[in-house]
Amino acid sequence: MSQVNIRDDEVDIVIAALRTDLTSFMEDWRAVFSRFHLIIVKDPDLKGDLKIPEGFSLDVYTKSDIERVVGSSSSAVVFSGYSCRYFGYLMSRKKYIVSIDDDCVPTKDDKPESADAVAQHITNLTTPATPFFFNTLYDPFRKGADFVRGYPFSLRIGVQCALSCGLWLNLADYDAPTQALKPGQRNSRFVDAVLTVPVRVMLPVSGINIAFDRELVGPALVPAFRLAKEGKFRWETVEDIWSGMCVKVICDHLGFGVKSGLPYVWRNERGDAVESLKKEWEGVKLMEEVVPFFQSMRLSQAAVTAEDCVIEMAAAVKERLGPLDPVFARAAETMVEWVKLWKEVTSRLSVTAA
Amino acid sequence: MSQVNIRDDEVDIVIAALRTDLTSFMEDWRAVFSRFHLIIVKDPDLKGDLKIPEGFSLDVYTKSDIERVVGSSSSAVVFSGYSCRYFGYLMSRKKYIVSIDDDCVPTKDDKPESADAVAQHITNLTTPATPFFFNTLYDPFRKGADFVRGYPFSLRIGVQCALSCGLWLNLADYDAPTQALKPGQRNSRFVDAVLTVPVRVMLPVSGINIAFDRELVGPALVPAFRLAKEGKFRWETVEDIWSGMCVKVICDHLGFGVKSGLPYVWRNERGDAVESLKKEWEGVKLMEEVVPFFQSMRLSQAAVTAEDCVIEMAAAVKERLGPLDPVFARAAETMVEWVKLWKEVTSRLSVTAA
Repeated sequence: MSQVNIRDDEVDIVIAALRTDLTSFMEDWRAVFSRFHLIIVKDPDLKGDLKIPEGFSLDVYTKSDIERVVGSSSSAVVFSGYSCRYFGYLMSRKKYIVSIDDDCVPTKDDKPESADAVAQHITNLTTPATPFFFNTLYDPFRKGADFVRGYPFSLRIGVQCALSCGLWLNLADYDAPTQALKPGQRNSRFVDAVLTVPVRVMLPVSGINIAFDRELVGPALVPAFRLAKEGKFRWETVEDIWSGMCVKVICDHLGFGVKSGLPYVWRNERGDAVESLKKEWEGVKLMEEVVPFFQSMRLSQAAVTAEDCVIEMAAAVKERLGPLDPVFARAAETMVEWVKLWKEVTSRLSVTAA
Repeated sequence: MSQVNIRDDEVDIVIAALRTDLTSFMEDWRAVFSRFHLIIVKDPDLKGDLKIPEGFSLDVYTKSDIERVVGSSSSAVVFSGYSCRYFGYLMSRKKYIVSIDDDCVPTKDDKPESADAVAQHITNLTTPATPFFFNTLYDPFRKGADFVRGYPFSLRIGVQCALSCGLWLNLADYDAPTQALKPGQRNSRFVDAVLTVPVRVMLPVSGINIAFDRELVGPALVPAFRLAKEGKFRWETVEDIWSGMCVKVICDHLGFGVKSGLPYVWRNERGDAVESLKKEWEGVKLMEEVVPFFQSMRLSQAAVTAEDCVIEMAAAVKERLGPLDPVFARAAETMVEWVKLWKEVTSRLSVTAA
């Protein structure tokens, strides 16, 4: 990993608390997290008080904070389940956000530095991305690597990276059908690479272990896509897949890069995939519409900020996907609401800070 | 690596001999190569007899064979230097071709199976590729891997893989300027992954360590692009970069996939990058034109075979790149000649075989 110069106070670590006792999670991450400010958002559906160990710099937000900020409970934006972390994105004033699910701990391998997921994410975000031509030796900005023969020199400067998507050891991020079909399958392959996902190529962004430049694309991470039977396990959700494709389209349009690969987190067992599958998971069916939509989505030159892009995309969602399923019409409405909320909160917090 | 069922007699290993003594090269590969038929093509510029150890099944082709087959020496197709391996592609009648430069040996690491570059290439070619959506856990067909959450089920069947691009440890495939700037740089990172290069994404294919399905895309590997001062070291050539972009465009058009990653080969030191740089390497300048050309190249629906595609692409090269530099007009001419030659030799050899 390259050395990067970034002040610790430019980073917020956002944790969605989907269970009350965060003790072991926080202790496992203490060496990494204690350098940074943390935003912990409690799932508004979760009963009981949070248990958080001492010694961290943090803000905790609960249901009452969400209601205070969002105002009317009739808002289309819902912050329950995994979506509560989006409230943390909204409240952050930092340049970079790192978000890691509360069932993940640092990886343990031969190289101690690979356990520092935050440092790797920040390296990914602060070194250029190269979306316009594929480098076969992966990240050319990594120590010991470079651009290979044939790589055009004019493209070697790269572009700013706005989103860093990390991966998972042990329980990988499969959907409920895959996990139910292969209950014993665990990911044990540590692939020592980071790569830029090329322009116009869509990927399934997992929200388990990500980081992004809030100033560049913050409002593009939108809690818009809620399955009717969305549950409290990752494989019962696709909110992150949707927001990931929003971000990717927006990065492609605005000229930013998206990286995938390191860092890994170790993902612990949670839930029962077969039970989840009984809920008749709509995610499978909906992706067949969602992916071609985002693959063909082109934004206009009038869209010059992430906010503009989300609004423009919401209109396209309503028009092209809306007639297919009510979930899409709701997503379009939520995207518009979210941008409104983002602008309100941003201006309010900057007034408070001034 | 997955188990694949492929008969050894479906594979030709093509070696371009750029030096006379192949003893240590062949001995290092004996365990791998001795299962297969080999085609060794001697660089027609090379003086002296080849030294090849006993115990291999092989055909050797030299300058006189090339002249006999190609006929008139006025042909636009030139088989000197690294391009002599294309004569091997022309003479092969097998489904799969694996081609490895004569300065590369098997990698030595903890896992003995990773040294069998041929088996890995064949696995890459015989398992599906997934060019239409990016799988963050790399090759989903590998043992222990799968498609991640959000990956559309309709795309999980994949497509046939036509080209497998391997990588290099030790001396990586940098261009002369990069190698000269970082003379001590060696690649020591073994990245344990294979991935499909997405559709419409261009990559710099290196000819050092590749394999392809000759029946699907054989004629697309065309020795068309010859620098005026092309030398006998890889960093003095771009013939493979050009033919790689031809193949990628053709795969995208015909619905085949291209993979990059494993297998690695260990690449030994050869040549002096600083000396090469003194030749005023045109590769740097020309790539600035070549890459955008291939990125924007779209073939017509009338092009349904690799031959058709090369002919159509040659016309576009002549028209759009021809006016920029004589090297492009020559490349266009050679592409047409090559397809003619490919068809002639193919029909001649099938008559002989009947």
